[in-house]
Amino acid sequence: MSVIKDMKVSIKRIPQSRISQVDFNNLPFGRVFADHMLVCDYKNGAWGAPEIMPYGKFEIFPCITALHYGQAIFEGMKAFKNQDGDAWLFRPEENFKRMNLSAWRMCMPEITHEIFIDGLKELVRLDSNWIPTQEGASLYVRPHMFGTDEYVGIKPSDNYRFVIFSCPVGAYYPEPVGLWATRKYVRANEGGTGEAKAAGNYAASLLGAREARDRGLNNVMWLDGHDHAYIEECGTMNMFFVINGTVVTPNLSGTILHGITRDSVLTLLEDHGIPVEVRRVSMAEIKEAFANGTLEEAFGAGTAATIAHVDRIGFEDEPHMILPKIEDRKISNMLLRELADIRTGRIEDKHNWMVKI
Amino acid sequence: MSVIKDMKVSIKRIPQSRISQVDFNNLPFGRVFADHMLVCDYKNGAWGAPEIMPYGKFEIFPCITALHYGQAIFEGMKAFKNQDGDAWLFRPEENFKRMNLSAWRMCMPEITHEIFIDGLKELVRLDSNWIPTQEGASLYVRPHMFGTDEYVGIKPSDNYRFVIFSCPVGAYYPEPVGLWATRKYVRANEGGTGEAKAAGNYAASLLGAREARDRGLNNVMWLDGHDHAYIEECGTMNMFFVINGTVVTPNLSGTILHGITRDSVLTLLEDHGIPVEVRRVSMAEIKEAFANGTLEEAFGAGTAATIAHVDRIGFEDEPHMILPKIEDRKISNMLLRELADIRTGRIEDKHNWMVKI
Repeated sequence: MSVIKDMKVSIKRIPQSRISQVDFNNLPFGRVFADHMLVCDYKNGAWGAPEIMPYGKFEIFPCITALHYGQAIFEGMKAFKNQDGDAWLFRPEENFKRMNLSAWRMCMPEITHEIFIDGLKELVRLDSNWIPTQEGASLYVRPHMFGTDEYVGIKPSDNYRFVIFSCPVGAYYPEPVGLWATRKYVRANEGGTGEAKAAGNYAASLLGAREARDRGLNNVMWLDGHDHAYIEECGTMNMFFVINGTVVTPNLSGTILHGITRDSVLTLLEDHGIPVEVRRVSMAEIKEAFANGTLEEAFGAGTAATIAHVDRIGFEDEPHMILPKIEDRKISNMLLRELADIRTGRIEDKHNWMVKI
Repeated sequence: MSVIKDMKVSIKRIPQSRISQVDFNNLPFGRVFADHMLVCDYKNGAWGAPEIMPYGKFEIFPCITALHYGQAIFEGMKAFKNQDGDAWLFRPEENFKRMNLSAWRMCMPEITHEIFIDGLKELVRLDSNWIPTQEGASLYVRPHMFGTDEYVGIKPSDNYRFVIFSCPVGAYYPEPVGLWATRKYVRANEGGTGEAKAAGNYAASLLGAREARDRGLNNVMWLDGHDHAYIEECGTMNMFFVINGTVVTPNLSGTILHGITRDSVLTLLEDHGIPVEVRRVSMAEIKEAFANGTLEEAFGAGTAATIAHVDRIGFEDEPHMILPKIEDRKISNMLLRELADIRTGRIEDKHNWMVKI
């Protein structure tokens, strides 16, 4: 256990685990919390010692930077158990890198590898009996950081709190999803924060998502903020389309998230020799492919969502496009199965994505 | 004291006021907090009873909506004392209306008039000895609301907390400010949240503001997100220019804040018969006016900033434009003096802006 020694992480264990209260066969997403959390504070220009403690409330002042000026970022990743009962994280180094990209964009301090990665392993190890083994379930791990200055004025905070907690979860989208594209709402723009996992990006998406739900769909498929013509992402996931046997996905334009599942999907597609085009994808192209019968699949890829089948796409007030049956979708079903098999150790992890805890 | 009875606000007073620790002649902005705060929680579709209590920390779960998805809004207003020692608020009804506009945009519940206005009056009355009487100082009052769901997933929160606290403050900008205009960063876009006082808008501005400071200026003067050509606002204030005797200010395009000080300035200008144009204002126009010597004044208007003289404007890498001397600026100096005189009761409040507490 050299990690503990190196990090000098103090661990205060929960007196009595809450795990017996949880029905692992009926896990909602994001409402059940594992026993412990990691907390680490930044002040006077440096991170202090991380502490693991029972998950629960902490005290804040009402004036802190994050609550008024939105200086807050997060990451999401998943832990799995393989058939031998060993606990694994999926590509945590990528989350670490992305968190620091978000931190840079939002003028927040970098988190150290030691606190993020070693702290993460320590925390998940301690709560490893919270990792579900049911098919499709996992332990969703949420690192986040927020500004804690006691100051009313707009400037980067001098003080921050970094926290990791986790939730045993079932599917984020239990059913195929319907998406709405519109020129009415914009998620991100060049020169903005669309690429960062910044809190404000998500709040900005809520009104559009509410209108999507009013239209019988689940979420917004965002279009670019300049021309309102090109598909960006879905807020919870990156978008992929299969048109006439070729997978098409928007390029990282600066306004969309660098999805880790997106990257994994691109690698798996390459492994299988499936043709892929990473480029601008217009709504007009999707509508045309649907009209001429070549739009074979549409899916989202994200940590929480994994591979989410899209069964309906609406555009403005036009009738929804009803996409081909889920069971006929070769590529997205293959990806879903293969990612699950890698994560649970049923097939070889050729790309060394899994990190043992 | 019918207000207390109607509202059923419970008041828990601080055992011993902290006011004797404060040097009212050296007030920073936003670092000193008055004795009390108002807290009111929303759950099961309704606001509970507001409580006034000593200002201080409260407990939250690390997973709350506001910290992860930025569902948080705020308002800013100021309380003053007149020469008779009576306490007054400046146009609080406008803050109330704007807070509910922000709430609508961010899918948050409306706050009631009773909680916001009556609660505000009750709180400021209780802490009225914290209202500074020094010239240019005031009690800055900060109502804010944030999502408190214990849920990891992107949707509008079901639970909220509304808080009001206050700070005796000096000037937000103690000196004239220098502003930087750039195409590199964008604050807001059509279809986005630029019009709301939403937390995320401010976090998104920090990196640009940091670069402005690296260039020896104080803040960014934002350009529109589509053409990067038209002046929007300054994040902390709306922008005004005096060109050849005419006041020019950007129109409310949907991406800039509906400033209450902005509105008050427009009314005062009308009172004085000063020509005003409310329309798109391009950076090219400002550069041309500077070049031909007709750019007479530039200033920002905001609650915290009041009327802030702008003494330098930079655009991209071009040399800063050095604007005319502050003491020669007739219009902005008149506005600054007149607003201060109305707020402290030295001249007639013709528009009934002041509300006695």
